Amino acid sequence: MVRRHTISVLVENQHGVLARIAGLFAARGFNIDSLTVGRTKDDTLSRMTIVVLADDETLEQIVKQLDRLVTTVRVEDYVGQDIVERELILLKVQPEPEKRNEVFQIVEIFRGKVVDLNPRNLVIEITGSEGKLAAIIEALKPYNVQELARSGKIAMARGKTLRDPL
Amino acid sequence: MVRRHTISVLVENQHGVLARIAGLFAARGFNIDSLTVGRTKDDTLSRMTIVVLADDETLEQIVKQLDRLVTTVRVEDYVGQDIVERELILLKVQPEPEKRNEVFQIVEIFRGKVVDLNPRNLVIEITGSEGKLAAIIEALKPYNVQELARSGKIAMARGKTLRDPL
Repeated sequence: MVRRHTISVLVENQHGVLARIAGLFAARGFNIDSLTVGRTKDDTLSRMTIVVLADDETLEQIVKQLDRLVTTVRVEDYVGQDIVERELILLKVQPEPEKRNEVFQIVEIFRGKVVDLNPRNLVIEITGSEGKLAAIIEALKPYNVQELARSGKIAMARGKTLRDPL
Repeated sequence: MVRRHTISVLVENQHGVLARIAGLFAARGFNIDSLTVGRTKDDTLSRMTIVVLADDETLEQIVKQLDRLVTTVRVEDYVGQDIVERELILLKVQPEPEKRNEVFQIVEIFRGKVVDLNPRNLVIEITGSEGKLAAIIEALKPYNVQELARSGKIAMARGKTLRDPL
């Protein structure tokens, strides 16, 4: 079955780890939807979240390959699990001056924040699920979207307590 | 001068682009602080934000190399520019039951959100600058942090309007 998988990988901070992991996906011709890599509580480790559209069998093989890398501490495919998923976006919009108020209303409805404002344009910060973010991007389209930066998804299993806290 | 650079790269969605770019940094022995890659308004393009500690001269060479890749549409080093920078984190904490209220107070002070709650633990969502996130992580340390997922930084220049809207 081809579906969207969210994979969390805990890796050691060593040169080339990211290149090697990205290479595993590239070698199979997968197009990565989003990828984030950032630090953890432990300075020697980084946590990656990778979202990829893939068939279950091929992905299982990649997960096994990831697990075999000496730099991999833990890898988990969240498919079918109950998880919290969130993404952050920044949007720069440049509405006509008389339409600024409409933009502020949209931002309020979606519980976003205006994080920069100047005579020409404004920058909006918002977090949410994929659906919510798609909805605000759509709602802001008539207001001259100049720039969009997405963090990519981060995710965490609900409830479950890890054996090894990170 | 060695300092932290935030680089924004707009790339074509092709297999192996991420692996190639990560490889450029790995070849120079750079340790990437954070990296995010996500979609843009244009389905054929992705935007990457890379944060790396590097000396200016070496980084300038990498930026030039990035710019020469046929898959690169635009690359920009934000160093010295006035930018909005934000990161998203999810934190799972498992406080003693009688200390849950203290956790809720901290979340409120930092304007975070509790996005999951069950008898064992809770998941907190928060966005902000590096300093703010470091402060809340520190404040939550006494409450048994189980898991931490960071999106990595995303960034956008203030005010400036792009020639080619994305």
